[in-house]
Formats: sequence, C-alpha cells, structure tokens
Amino acid sequence: MSIAISLSAQAEIAAEIPVDLERARQPQYGRYLDELEPGQVFEHPRGFTFDRSEMLDFARTFMQTNPLYLNLEYAKAHGFPDLPASPQMVFNVTLSLGVQNDSEKAIANLGYYQVQFLRPVYPGDTLCAFTRVLERRDRGADKPGIVRIRTVGVNQHDQVVLQYERKIMVAWRGDRLPTTPAPAAPADFPGEESPVLELPLKNSDFGTGLAGPNTWFEDYTPGDIIVHANGRTITEEHMALTYLVGNSHPLHFDRVFSSGLSGKMSGEPIVYGGLVFAWLDGLASRDISEHAVWELGFTEGYHTQPAFAGDTVGALSRVLAAEEVPGAEGFGLLTVQLVGVKNVSAAAALETHGADLFIKEDAKRALGKEKIADKIFEIERRLLVKRRPC
Amino acid sequence: MSIAISLSAQAEIAAEIPVDLERARQPQYGRYLDELEPGQVFEHPRGFTFDRSEMLDFARTFMQTNPLYLNLEYAKAHGFPDLPASPQMVFNVTLSLGVQNDSEKAIANLGYYQVQFLRPVYPGDTLCAFTRVLERRDRGADKPGIVRIRTVGVNQHDQVVLQYERKIMVAWRGDRLPTTPAPAAPADFPGEESPVLELPLKNSDFGTGLAGPNTWFEDYTPGDIIVHANGRTITEEHMALTYLVGNSHPLHFDRVFSSGLSGKMSGEPIVYGGLVFAWLDGLASRDISEHAVWELGFTEGYHTQPAFAGDTVGALSRVLAAEEVPGAEGFGLLTVQLVGVKNVSAAAALETHGADLFIKEDAKRALGKEKIADKIFEIERRLLVKRRPC
Amino acid sequence: MSIAISLSAQAEIAAEIPVDLERARQPQYGRYLDELEPGQVFEHPRGFTFDRSEMLDFARTFMQTNPLYLNLEYAKAHGFPDLPASPQMVFNVTLSLGVQNDSEKAIANLGYYQVQFLRPVYPGDTLCAFTRVLERRDRGADKPGIVRIRTVGVNQHDQVVLQYERKIMVAWRGDRLPTTPAPAAPADFPGEESPVLELPLKNSDFGTGLAGPNTWFEDYTPGDIIVHANGRTITEEHMALTYLVGNSHPLHFDRVFSSGLSGKMSGEPIVYGGLVFAWLDGLASRDISEHAVWELGFTEGYHTQPAFAGDTVGALSRVLAAEEVPGAEGFGLLTVQLVGVKNVSAAAALETHGADLFIKEDAKRALGKEKIADKIFEIERRLLVKRRPC
Repeated sequence: MSIAISLSAQAEIAAEIPVDLERARQPQYGRYLDELEPGQVFEHPRGFTFDRSEMLDFARTFMQTNPLYLNLEYAKAHGFPDLPASPQMVFNVTLSLGVQNDSEKAIANLGYYQVQFLRPVYPGDTLCAFTRVLERRDRGADKPGIVRIRTVGVNQHDQVVLQYERKIMVAWRGDRLPTTPAPAAPADFPGEESPVLELPLKNSDFGTGLAGPNTWFEDYTPGDIIVHANGRTITEEHMALTYLVGNSHPLHFDRVFSSGLSGKMSGEPIVYGGLVFAWLDGLASRDISEHAVWELGFTEGYHTQPAFAGDTVGALSRVLAAEEVPGAEGFGLLTVQLVGVKNVSAAAALETHGADLFIKEDAKRALGKEKIADKIFEIERRLLVKRRPC
Repeated sequence: MSIAISLSAQAEIAAEIPVDLERARQPQYGRYLDELEPGQVFEHPRGFTFDRSEMLDFARTFMQTNPLYLNLEYAKAHGFPDLPASPQMVFNVTLSLGVQNDSEKAIANLGYYQVQFLRPVYPGDTLCAFTRVLERRDRGADKPGIVRIRTVGVNQHDQVVLQYERKIMVAWRGDRLPTTPAPAAPADFPGEESPVLELPLKNSDFGTGLAGPNTWFEDYTPGDIIVHANGRTITEEHMALTYLVGNSHPLHFDRVFSSGLSGKMSGEPIVYGGLVFAWLDGLASRDISEHAVWELGFTEGYHTQPAFAGDTVGALSRVLAAEEVPGAEGFGLLTVQLVGVKNVSAAAALETHGADLFIKEDAKRALGKEKIADKIFEIERRLLVKRRPC
Repeated sequence: MSIAISLSAQAEIAAEIPVDLERARQPQYGRYLDELEPGQVFEHPRGFTFDRSEMLDFARTFMQTNPLYLNLEYAKAHGFPDLPASPQMVFNVTLSLGVQNDSEKAIANLGYYQVQFLRPVYPGDTLCAFTRVLERRDRGADKPGIVRIRTVGVNQHDQVVLQYERKIMVAWRGDRLPTTPAPAAPADFPGEESPVLELPLKNSDFGTGLAGPNTWFEDYTPGDIIVHANGRTITEEHMALTYLVGNSHPLHFDRVFSSGLSGKMSGEPIVYGGLVFAWLDGLASRDISEHAVWELGFTEGYHTQPAFAGDTVGALSRVLAAEEVPGAEGFGLLTVQLVGVKNVSAAAALETHGADLFIKEDAKRALGKEKIADKIFEIERRLLVKRRPC
C-alpha cells in the first residue's frame, strides 16, 4: 500500500486561530509514588535499533579496550556472527528506555540489582523494554517512598537480552499535575526466572596479541587490587550522550530544570549514572576485562556521589572470586568489585583511603566510619574470561 | 582501470622554494549581493551520503521520540523499506549543502518558506542540492539587500526529496575580495511545482505501545496549546554538529571570525539555526509527533533571537488545524505552530508572556506590542498523524 | 560450538574478602627509555574496525570537503568499491593503535616522517598495527632520550595500508613502576621497502560540479600561497575524539593527570596532535584537495605548539611542486606545505609573519629568527589530483 497526497502551498494560519490560554496543557512524564502499584506492568516507548557504527562509537567513547567490541575479525573468530554490543551499551540503553515511564519523576536512583545479560545484541537488532513494579515502600504521607522495579530488555525475536532490578526514590504527587497515561500493558511480562546464558562462543587463538599477556583468567587471584592508571575528564558531552542512549530525565541535560531544584541536586546538570559506570568500566577494561567474552551481570551498584561536567573519574578493581565454569572449557569466571573515584587519581585515592575504599558506603555508619567524598560508585561484576592458551 | 605508482621516499623541499608573498591568494566562499542575480542556478558542492548510524545519532542527539526514526522494526511495519531519515536531518543537511555557495557571506538568515518533504531518505542514499536565485531586493548602494532563493535536495535517482525557499540578508561586495566561481550551472533546475507526496505507507497496529495512548490524531483539536516539559541545554557541541550536517558558515564554529565581527553577531559563535529548530522539534516530539508518519513541510520559520552555547531551549506547540486527508485512511493532517524559548522553562514563558508568545515577532510593532526577548523561534508545520486504532 | 551457563542470583561477596593493600598493583602502559631497544617489534592491542557512519562522521567532524569521503556515488564513479576512509582517519587511527605501547609514557611527540598511504580502507575493514624500534638516542643518565620507531597499519588481508616513522622523547624509568609486558612479537615485521601504490581508480566526469571549478591540478603552480578563509574553534570535544580514534595517552583527556605534571604540559589536557592536523587538513581541503583522489603521504610533520580546548586553529598552504605522474593519465602530483596557526586568522598570521611562517621552526635559530608563537604545525604532503576535464 502507498498513499499519495498533493502538496499545496502552505499558507500561515496562526493569526487566524485565537489563542485561548485555558486550552493549555502540560504533559508530564514519569510517575509519582501514588501512581505506582506493585504488579503494574509498563511497555516502554520507542525501542532502540542498534547499528554498528553507533556500537563502535559507544565502546570507544567509553574507553572500552576489549577487542570483542572493537574488532570485527576478533568477534567472528570467537564465534559471534557480528560485533556484539558492549554490555555497558545494552545496559545504558535498556535502562534509558524505561526512564520516561519509570523514573523521569524520580528524585534519586538508589541502586541497580541482579543485572543479568542473557544474550548478545548485534547490529540491526532492536530492543524494547518492559517494567513491572515489584514493591512500593511508603514512609509517610509527605515523605518520598521507595519503589523497586524489574525491567527487561527484549530483542525483535522476543528474546530477553537483559534483566535487572532498580530501586528509585519517588515523591508523592500532591497537588502536582498528573503524569501521562501509560499504553495498555502487555498480557505477559517477559523475563526469565532461571535464565540460561547461551553464547555462540568459540575459543580461539586468533588475536592473542590484541590484548595483554598478563590479563588472562589465571592472572587474577581473589584479593588482588588493581589500580587503573588513567582517568577521564567528563565534559559537557554528557548531556548529548544522555539522550543518545535514550534517557529523558531533564536532570541530565536541562540547566533551567536543574537550577530550579532545591537541595543537593540543584545547579549544573548531573551526569547520568549509567554513563559514569560505563566510563569506569572502560577505564578498568585493559587491566581487567580485555580477555573477557561475556559480562554475566552486576549486583548492587550504587552511585554514592554525583558527577558533573568537569569532573575527572578514575577506577579501581578488586578481585573477589575466580571460579571454574562447568562446561566452559577455556574460560573462568571472575567476580570483581569496581570502585569509582573523582577528581583524584585512583592511586592517590587508595593511598588516602586505603581499605575503606572497598567498604560499601551505606555500611560505613554501622562500622563507625565516615563516607568517602571522593568515591562515586561501587558495584560487583561477574565476567567470563579466557584462560591463557597452552 | 587501476593505476600503480611507486612511492619513493619523500624529501622535504619547502626550503628550496622561495616564498613570494605576492603569490598569496585568499579564496572566498559565499556570494555578495552584487554577485547574485535572479535566474542564476547553482549546483552545490560535495553531496551527502546518509548512513544508518548517523541517522540514528542525529535523531537521538536532537531528542526525537518518534519510533519511526529510532526503531527499524517499527519503520518496516509501517511500510518503509528501511529507517527513514528524520525530516530535521534531511532539512539540516540540504540547507547546509547550500551554505558554501549561497550564504557563507550572508549577514542574516531571515526565514524559511514553503519547505516541502517529498520523499523519504534511506541509509545509503546520497543527496545533492541545487539553488536558483528567485529575487534580489536592493535597498541602496551601501545597504545590505535581501535575496530570495529556492533550494532543492535531490537523491541519487534524481528524485526531489526536499524543496524550500530562504530569504537571506547579504552585503554588497564593495572593495572586498571576490568570491570563488561556481561550477557550471546544470541545464535544468530540478524541483516540482505541484508536488505529489508518495509514501510506501502501511497502517499498522505494530508498536501501538511504543508511543503514548493520548497522542493520536484524535487527541488534538485546533486551539490546543501544549507546553513541553523538558528543555535542552545546548553546549559547545553545536560547533561540531554544524559541520556534521555540512554547514560551512564560520559564524557557527570560528571564534576568531565571530569575535572580529561588529554588532550583535560579535562574540561567541552562534548556534546554527537548523540545529536549534531540530532540538525544538525533538523537545516537542513526544507530545506532538510520536505517531506521525510524515512531516509534510513548514512555512515561514523565523529565528527571532540567536542561541549560544550555554543557552537552554524549550518549546511550546499550538494546534492550528486538524484535517481529513482524502485517500489516506487511518491518518489525519495536523497543522501545528511551534515556538521556541530560551533560558526559561516553556511553562514559565507561557505564564509570563501569555498569548503574545504565539504572535509573530515581526507583527508585533504593528500591534503596538514589544518583541519577546526570551523567544527564539516560530514556525508552522504540517504532519501526517496516525488515527487511534479501533 | 556454544556454551550454556545457568545464571544464579548474584549475591554480594565483597565484605567477605579481606582487603589486603599489599596485594595492590598499578599496571603501567607505554615504555620508558630503558625499556626500548632497537630491533624490538610490538604487536599493538585491539585493532580497529572501520564502519561507514564513523568514517563519514570523522570526515565531517574534521571539515573534510573532498566528495570522495562524503559521497558514495562519487566514490563509486571514481572506481572505489565503497567510500574510502579519509587519509586523516587512517593516520589518526593507526597512530593511536600504537600509543598504548609506544608512547603512553612519552614526554613529547617530536615529529612524523615518511608517512605513506598504500591502500584504501573501506567500511568493514579492520586495521591492526605493528611497531619496530629503529633507533634510540640517549643523552645521558638522567636526561630523556629520543626514540625513532616505524609503525605499520595492516588490514584483515595482511595488506599494509599505512606506514610511517615517529620520533618521540621518552624519559628513563628510574625508580618508577615498570610497564606491562608486551605480547609476544610476531615473527615478521610487515611493511614495504619499495611500496607500489595501487588504486582501483577510474577517471570520471561524474560529479564535476561537486567540487570547485578552480581547484584542478592545473590551477596550482609551485610558489602559490593559499590562505584558507575559515578557522575552527576546538572545544572540549577533543577529549572524546582522542579515545574515539583509540589514543590512550592521558595527557589528552585526564585533567587530574595533566594538572599533576610540571612544566609546559601542566594544566589543561592538550589536544592530541593528530586531531589538530586533521582539522588543519580539513580547513585547507576546499582550496587544495577537493579534487584529490589520493593522499600519497607526508614528511616531517611537527606540532610546534600545543593546542587546548578553546583555541581556534587556521591553516595556510603553499604549493611546492606540481608534477606529471607516469601512467596516471588525468592526474597530477602536488606537493603542498601545510602550516597551522592558532587564535589568529590565517590571513592575519600571513600579514604579521610573512615568509617566516613557511620556514621550519627548528631552522629558525640558525637563521637568527624567532620562533612564531602563533604557529602550531608544519608538514609537507603529496596529493594525486584530478586534471581539469577536457
């Protein structure tokens, strides 16, 4: 089918239509606490098509060094039919797809939990996302509450590629404008309770020289602390990058909005946390994950301080576990704690704060310790890493 | 055919070639008023190949929310063979292709008129552009004059994809250097007098949940005013974006040039207006055009104040007409006034300026009204929008 | 082969793993003077897959105007099977691939020498790079020395696409941490001693109007000086662009690192020289190289002053030779001196400094002349340029 329309010259007509200010409406996005109920399911708008140059750009912008995300020949030699998207891009995009509905009115992102990457995303794939409200904790009539949600990213073949939980802090609507209605919820909420990761993986000697000789699985032992040499100064680029991954929260790109806030969020736009995480991951990558073939997931990720344009971020990793993987000859499973700092080198942060850097910030009070103002992020990640070739 | 050249070692030779300053030339681009004559036709340099990642990047950078430009599955389900370029990208690129010849010496861009989008642009397509001088209005020997031009963007199959008129203000050459000659003009100037828009359109229930439930054609009535919630802070990114769409006017990226000017253009580089328009369109998109399948065109677009890096722009829309389209079952035609403001939220601008925001700035003097310093842009646009599925 | 892994819920374990600060390591990249020996060969990490949108983005960001790098139809008409990457992108990427091993510890990049482009790079191609240490000049026990290296960029068919030499200034390690080991060196170092450039070139009248009528080979005579009209203000974008081409030297994107340095490099991150060169080349392109079909190479390129975000760069060219090319009917060979200036227009720089602009900075002392503070770059380049069609 096609349609044909004759295009006539377009005359201005605005002056003929009286302006009636009573007819003004102000659509609001996101949800207030009283608009979120456990069990609700939302289908998120738009979707996101991945394309190869954008995937390469993302990996490079965020300083990824794993050749799997940068080198098509390397990816193919390891069994992938095309370049896979970096886990950070899949995570940033899926989380962002949910922002307009889930968190555009959120006061704070409290944490990421049980992030699981189930399948690769390739050029040409299109992701959509769905969220289910798991829990709502009210703390009183005029206090913001905490909502726990589960979000799933699904490809065009209805396969789950990513799932995770988030906790967000949300205010009551009060006398504010209601938010826009959500589309009709889908009958079934996708997601896998006992997911099995299946990878088209081929162990390969190809490209042994494309990553370092001392970053194989065998080179890590639980307890190792690795201080990543370089930092990255974040510029105002972060505002464009926020929308490039699809995140619509004005806190990250609208200075009129930010400067109108009160409290610690007031002032300059705050860097979207997903971008900060992606930079930290990239800064760590040549020391930790350049021989990784899969990121299994993360748990309990916290942005303990915000970052702004002009801040320089640095990263440290600590190896927590190094395990066998039954059925995955040639690979081992690393669990790694990733910590981010800002406006201080990672080495200087370790010298100043020592072991306290690796203690969770929200555990500090119970231990009689001060929070660390330089520290911006903490998470645990699990990686499937190649063993040293014989 | 191929050629083979033996590459010898290259020795430095600059020191052997005497420097003769008499041999210096300073090629100038653009045209002065006395170099433009009605009837002239120019073929514009370079051309511009569209590729999918760049198209996605453009749509995302400018905060487009219509899934048609972001989601390949959605585009295919609606009859398009691939992702179409967003109208803003086609407009920005075509206009920019003409800048080096038409307006690199222009003092001001006065307006866009009769912009018509005639065909989709897909990944792999290459656009070229042609301009005809329609009219030249002199206002005296040493006063800048006004030139009206018509520009046409053509794909590699010689099909017109976009045509529009512009008015620009241009100075006399005086004793300045002449500009570079134009290539020989083509025999025929492309363009369609009574264009018929043909779209490979299929109405589809696919992706009903990928855009909001209250932004179908039926949800708009003439007179509706929609205040778009978010703004966008423009950063120095605009300098790179200007060249990314091919615009070569130094006013937008050369601080030495800008700071050497006198008058209100002097100082920091000014954001290329096409980019400002694209952001305003994007800010409006989730409230206005997320169910649109085609942008028919614009008329009388004026940048009433310049924008600079650091400015935050916001947008308001007003519905002017909602019409049936014979032969296009399932779609309706919206005419919408789009107004841009800066460094104030759209809601605050409406509160402050009320109905005056929607009056054309150049009509204000006759009405005894002041111009609005916060207001940066005004245009009328026509959109083909999906009706609510039964 | 594929692997399947059951993903269990991931529990936090960091608190259970004692923090032992003795286990901290700080991997260092780059090489110190005492770690570099003539004859060493290094395979560089990662590789770099070229994709079409990224190639177009690069050409546009750096203001390239040659339709060969912007217009697929033009490239095909001239015999290329797809858009070739711009020489500046190939050069920037190959040089950057070598940085982590060769120069991440370098104090200064002293110059480029004998740069030769041997084959086109197309979308989908993947480059890897190899370096051989040619020479090391020590200047005493605690003084930095000079290392001369040869780097080769190779595509996935093991064909050399680019080769060049660099001189870098490197400090002794002293009591600093040693750098990470390099992967095992390949048995053979690629590279061609007497390279023959083979191009799939077809002379074509296609697109005669896509570049100017006075920039054919015949329009240049040795001694011509061409002052390029526009400049480009470099913004903080340079930090992201550095990593986008793969350069990992923190001097270009890590303000904590830069501000911790002493001497003239201290302070704001310095723009990676390859990016500066690419902008200068782009600024010159519409006057010099829009009818070029190949860049043969450069010799002795020097960044004589650093550039920072906020600087505006401008360019001048001087024609040094115009030669016949046996066997390449329809083309001629131009040798052109390219000079860069900053924070002054190219025209003003010529007016102020005259012929001295074209004298090499390191030859000035012997001539009793002062160095020019405004001048940032100098190089000689050779271009294969189309002759005017009959």
